[in-house]
Amino acid sequence: MSRPERGTRAKTGRRPGTTQTRDAIVVVARRRFTDSGYDRTTIRGIAAEAGVDPALVRHFFGSKQRLFTEAVQTQPDPAQIVAALAAGDPAGAGARAARFIIAMLDPAGGSQIVAVLRAAASEPAAAALLRDRLTDEILRPVAAAIGADQPDLRAHLVATQILGLAIARDIIGLPALTALGQERLAAAIAPVLQHYLTGDLPGQAGN
Amino acid sequence: MSRPERGTRAKTGRRPGTTQTRDAIVVVARRRFTDSGYDRTTIRGIAAEAGVDPALVRHFFGSKQRLFTEAVQTQPDPAQIVAALAAGDPAGAGARAARFIIAMLDPAGGSQIVAVLRAAASEPAAAALLRDRLTDEILRPVAAAIGADQPDLRAHLVATQILGLAIARDIIGLPALTALGQERLAAAIAPVLQHYLTGDLPGQAGN
Repeated sequence: MSRPERGTRAKTGRRPGTTQTRDAIVVVARRRFTDSGYDRTTIRGIAAEAGVDPALVRHFFGSKQRLFTEAVQTQPDPAQIVAALAAGDPAGAGARAARFIIAMLDPAGGSQIVAVLRAAASEPAAAALLRDRLTDEILRPVAAAIGADQPDLRAHLVATQILGLAIARDIIGLPALTALGQERLAAAIAPVLQHYLTGDLPGQAGN
Repeated sequence: MSRPERGTRAKTGRRPGTTQTRDAIVVVARRRFTDSGYDRTTIRGIAAEAGVDPALVRHFFGSKQRLFTEAVQTQPDPAQIVAALAAGDPAGAGARAARFIIAMLDPAGGSQIVAVLRAAASEPAAAALLRDRLTDEILRPVAAAIGADQPDLRAHLVATQILGLAIARDIIGLPALTALGQERLAAAIAPVLQHYLTGDLPGQAGN
């Protein structure tokens, strides 16, 4: 789904093909961040794989951190995700969330969530991105939309299961998980997500 | 709990205080690996904080990877952990595992599991260590000891929840989790661990 070229050459000095080149750099960057982690991914390595000069990458994106942010922000609009997960019977929200997250973890071209998780291990900006986007923009609104009490706590508990699945299967490679297949893996975690979204939680703190 | 000095000077040429110095380096290394991640932790930085020469660190440990392995391997004997978690009613195994893991995540001086998790994001040797120690030496034997079917799958599903809690609370710092307190957090994840250990799982693959 590459964006159509716009006729901006006269105004901006961009050559035809600039948008494709920029998109290609983002695709290479996402895969390298996903496979190698944030610290071991370099602008030089991305440029070499994309067949461009490192100076062009810096010209387009400024810094590795900004390229990273762009590489992991091409997912669907959070509001659309929230609407899809919150629609229908609240008793089915866990199963919908499980299928959604497992599809998100298995796209062609590398999972943004795995890239952000790897980066979050050492880069506080990536941890903040994960907190803002996954929990504040998706999971908390879903919990609130289905009428759950304590939506913050529920969102953060759901996040433990989602992130744990990503690290256990896609970063550590635990074999019983990689062997399970998308459908059975979704069935395995759906009751847990449902429990966190609508089940009984321990009482709130006295404060 | 520093080990007593042994009178080994005559035999090995070690100066008095060598064992304390070595232990102090391990303590500094564990905290720095936990706080900064594997790639951003250097022998030079560890040596500076421990007040020794970097050459001494290399003399004791050889390489950063070997120092890392030692820094994260001072936990209790896995067989003792398995015995403690598997003893008693299988219906209480989830609660016992939840309390144990949360205590493991909150020691004075830095959690080994968080250090290994941060390192696993970029260092395959750390991912292998986590797989071998957490799942093969602890969680799978617990599942087998309480008589569960599919002990590999159950162990790996338990690992998703444990690792997810560690990354969501201790690396990303999701505030509803950090605010919850040990006891209520253990109560929140105990039913999930119990479900993975003894509950119904999706049917096995046809193979």
